Amino acid sequence: MINANFDKLGKNYLFSEVARRVAAYKAENPGADVISLGIGDVTQPLAAPVVAAMTEASAGMGRAETFRGYSPDNGYPFLRAAIGGYYRGRGIDIGDDEIVVSDGAKSDCANILDIFERGITALIPDPVYPVYLDTNVMAGNSVRLVAGTDENGFTPHPPKERADIVYICSPNNPTGAVFSRALLSEWVGWANENGAVILFDAAYEAFVSDPSLPRSIFEIDGARTCAIELCSLSKTAGFTGVRCGYTVIPRELERDGASLLKLWQRRQATKFNGVGYVVQRAAEAVFSPEGLAATRAVIDIYRGNARVLASALDALALSYTGGKDSPYLWLKTPGGMPSWDFFDRLLHEANLVGTPGAGFGTAGEGRFRLTAFGSPERTLEAADRLKNFRL
Amino acid sequence: MINANFDKLGKNYLFSEVARRVAAYKAENPGADVISLGIGDVTQPLAAPVVAAMTEASAGMGRAETFRGYSPDNGYPFLRAAIGGYYRGRGIDIGDDEIVVSDGAKSDCANILDIFERGITALIPDPVYPVYLDTNVMAGNSVRLVAGTDENGFTPHPPKERADIVYICSPNNPTGAVFSRALLSEWVGWANENGAVILFDAAYEAFVSDPSLPRSIFEIDGARTCAIELCSLSKTAGFTGVRCGYTVIPRELERDGASLLKLWQRRQATKFNGVGYVVQRAAEAVFSPEGLAATRAVIDIYRGNARVLASALDALALSYTGGKDSPYLWLKTPGGMPSWDFFDRLLHEANLVGTPGAGFGTAGEGRFRLTAFGSPERTLEAADRLKNFRL
Repeated sequence: MINANFDKLGKNYLFSEVARRVAAYKAENPGADVISLGIGDVTQPLAAPVVAAMTEASAGMGRAETFRGYSPDNGYPFLRAAIGGYYRGRGIDIGDDEIVVSDGAKSDCANILDIFERGITALIPDPVYPVYLDTNVMAGNSVRLVAGTDENGFTPHPPKERADIVYICSPNNPTGAVFSRALLSEWVGWANENGAVILFDAAYEAFVSDPSLPRSIFEIDGARTCAIELCSLSKTAGFTGVRCGYTVIPRELERDGASLLKLWQRRQATKFNGVGYVVQRAAEAVFSPEGLAATRAVIDIYRGNARVLASALDALALSYTGGKDSPYLWLKTPGGMPSWDFFDRLLHEANLVGTPGAGFGTAGEGRFRLTAFGSPERTLEAADRLKNFRL
Repeated sequence: MINANFDKLGKNYLFSEVARRVAAYKAENPGADVISLGIGDVTQPLAAPVVAAMTEASAGMGRAETFRGYSPDNGYPFLRAAIGGYYRGRGIDIGDDEIVVSDGAKSDCANILDIFERGITALIPDPVYPVYLDTNVMAGNSVRLVAGTDENGFTPHPPKERADIVYICSPNNPTGAVFSRALLSEWVGWANENGAVILFDAAYEAFVSDPSLPRSIFEIDGARTCAIELCSLSKTAGFTGVRCGYTVIPRELERDGASLLKLWQRRQATKFNGVGYVVQRAAEAVFSPEGLAATRAVIDIYRGNARVLASALDALALSYTGGKDSPYLWLKTPGGMPSWDFFDRLLHEANLVGTPGAGFGTAGEGRFRLTAFGSPERTLEAADRLKNFRL
């Protein structure tokens, strides 16, 4: 009677194995000053306008006049308007009614599978954010991997075969690679020809500074008939511990004669009870002029960290993707060293912690991920250690 | 490629049809003072200790020293300890490690189906909280209804046949009926004999004042090998607009050789990213001595409303379940009048809004739900109108 697909899940030991090795090293070397460049979590506090909105809304929940109960199913109109305005301000014509507010992109990219039948074919890039793979395995779907390589710069082209859904994360986790406009157009063309649906994970869009690079799939002609965009305030505004995201589904996106927007709204109305009022007010503040300025200042700190780490890799003459327009750096281990071996050497010889590429899929072997989410001081120190690291 | 089970869902028009009829009446009668006893949402503001905790945690998110990112997968230890203490304080031996924090009982009672295979048989009481039915329809499960009747007081006995899962909501939504200890023991015996899993929805447990009535399935011997408890702070502490709940799965609960606790933890770690820090601090405050006292004072307000409505029904000599140990009153319409007809008469002749029983399932026809979640003043006024209502 239980879901036997759970047995097919990998052991998901990546971050726990990292933690285990770090703890063992620290136990043997109590004086060691270990710096982590491994976590995907943010470290900078929330921006002041966001905190002000959240604090005010919290206090208001204690007064009858300003208390709020259940949220409207798809999010408060004030927040949907703020998110819609964020798109329209970039020249992307998204209606507020095409936006569904949620507790984060991870939930959405997992739960969106509910609107599709079981056994569909999912095309998943390798290396990959594990949620895409694991949720499809749990659902009993048929998974086809498309490998990131040096040749395609970890931004693969569409295959010849069809699939029902495809995940594109750009800027990518873990590779930091950003899909170009031309390449996304290829994918949109492929999806429209094949009746596939692109699940576009835009969680890291705010890190893109190069204006020639797309930040939303809806910048691409034809996307409105084949794409769903999932986004989050986690990395945009440091909301990993606040929990708010949103999914955009164009009105005209249909499959088997059904509106995917209406299916998703029905799924959410049935299986979810909305995002807290205080959180929605905090999220609204992110999109105010002051909020955007303040959160961009925080992102600039992480961008600075990425530059610092990138120059350390340059000094070592290690090749990598990311580090620009992305908080991740995805490097090639020296001499193709297995990624767990490189992890151990970096930990033992430089007291630095990163994430072995093998943990993100087969195509990740011989690669290593560093993140720019640390503090500037520690990242500078980490870069110095990297530069002095004897390959 | 889409999930065709969505086509089998009912139109879910209950509350929208209620809203439509109320709006039409108000448009024709602009001066009418309509009182709603129909909503399931709370109206009293959050208790002061909860607001204080939430406001302090919100402010702390703006400082580097107190900022928090991702929550631990199953919730912060401080909150799991507070919830565990809430059980242990009532003599129920639940370990903190058996508690998984979530954004609410609705999400949990929908998402828990992920750990079971598709096509299982779900036993669902009728009338019913629509989420049980709709989520099983979406999953393509086989649904068997067990009818609440006058004879069983809307607390049905187990059937002869087996099922894989059964939903028990006590105190019940919509009937207000509370399952006795003896009856829950029957269900636990049935579940253990048949290898079934009881999904016990304890969302309204805080309304029980009669000490002979169980508030948790884990007060019943044998429940640890057959039951999962889903609970929420929505009605306990007015968290409908805050979003926090929890699920309790005993360590020893296994099916097909697998631990359901481990399956649920894996499901949540893969498809959910935890509850916001500010919300978890607010929830922790609910379980402090001051928080419990303050939230109980709010529940006493709603209990008072329920008594007021119950005496109005007594005065009318209408029979009903609930109204004691529950925020809901489930009345028999006069002369078995169809529930939508009764709705219209109450709206037009007394300017009162309730919820037609037919909206909760076939067994709800000829019944009507009133809720005690309004303000005391308006509830008193509503009771006066009820007493003067010419049946």
